[in-house]
Amino acid sequence: MSESVKNDGEKIDLGPRVASYPMPVSLVGANVDGKANFLVAAWFMSAAISPPRVAVALNKSHYTNRGIKENKAFSVCVPSVDLIDAADYCGLVSGFKADKSEVFEVFYGKLGTAPMISECPVCMECKLEKVVDNGGHEMFIGEIVSTFTEENYLTCGVVDLKKVKPFMLSFNDRLYVELGKSIAKAWNAGKDYKP
Amino acid sequence: MSESVKNDGEKIDLGPRVASYPMPVSLVGANVDGKANFLVAAWFMSAAISPPRVAVALNKSHYTNRGIKENKAFSVCVPSVDLIDAADYCGLVSGFKADKSEVFEVFYGKLGTAPMISECPVCMECKLEKVVDNGGHEMFIGEIVSTFTEENYLTCGVVDLKKVKPFMLSFNDRLYVELGKSIAKAWNAGKDYKP
Repeated sequence: MSESVKNDGEKIDLGPRVASYPMPVSLVGANVDGKANFLVAAWFMSAAISPPRVAVALNKSHYTNRGIKENKAFSVCVPSVDLIDAADYCGLVSGFKADKSEVFEVFYGKLGTAPMISECPVCMECKLEKVVDNGGHEMFIGEIVSTFTEENYLTCGVVDLKKVKPFMLSFNDRLYVELGKSIAKAWNAGKDYKP
Repeated sequence: MSESVKNDGEKIDLGPRVASYPMPVSLVGANVDGKANFLVAAWFMSAAISPPRVAVALNKSHYTNRGIKENKAFSVCVPSVDLIDAADYCGLVSGFKADKSEVFEVFYGKLGTAPMISECPVCMECKLEKVVDNGGHEMFIGEIVSTFTEENYLTCGVVDLKKVKPFMLSFNDRLYVELGKSIAKAWNAGKDYKP
């Protein structure tokens, strides 16, 4: 991230393109036919704050989707960089072809049917609220009912990303990228900005 | 990001929490009453690939929302770290209180009513497809009709994040964080993984 590039104002249109920005990597969990299955996914976001909701967009071809709909439950787990090989495996190998229930140590929360990953620093347990049809993808919107973590990953009671060590997907060059250093305070850096 | 923390297996439930993961920062643009307005937003994701779509979740209280609905058009622009103060300003100051049409140099694409930011390395021009009601937030799903960038930000014809220098929001500690180094190849790192 050391190159210094200047905007020269000459715009070109690449056409309709997704993912020209870094995306956080997660593992989405669902029980399919009673067995835990996990899919690596970077198309997810916070969708509402009260109650807290998360949205995940998955290609309709994925094995995971049926499990989410059957159980009306899923999880979004945040892997640390230490889990990068296992996470990537869960994107390379479909649940249609391999049983992924033994890849991680699995636990369940209050919903009972949203499998989560013990090895992941953060897991959000979600109750399915809505399915939005987006053509080739469907979007699952879930209410977050629990956020599981461990004392080790907290600072002053909240999840500390410096301890979690999540990673991002740079889609175009097919690379996983770690987080760098903090560079400014949010809701603060622009206080003295004069347009 | 240098601390090494080990998972100790003792899970605790923090309750329903959003945003315990890094989120890419964007500026969402819309014309409101004929004037360009921009809002900083980290709740967005790729939502479909064919045609390419993006989803943005915005609190219903925002000024921007009415403009998106009126014009059925919006943009998602990716600022570089050089624009961090201006981007943060667009989160601190509402369009209800300040005219933000002069903060950036604005340009338009084929839709004519989705304002984009010349200074941003990447801008996605979006045609509104769907609005999903998520309680306090509404989610705008748009078809990406154009992706504007500059030759300087490309490597082999695709957007190169090392040149774009986007930044992420770490919500809990209210910090902006830059991207770090590449650590593995996606769709590859897990090839030899044995569960």
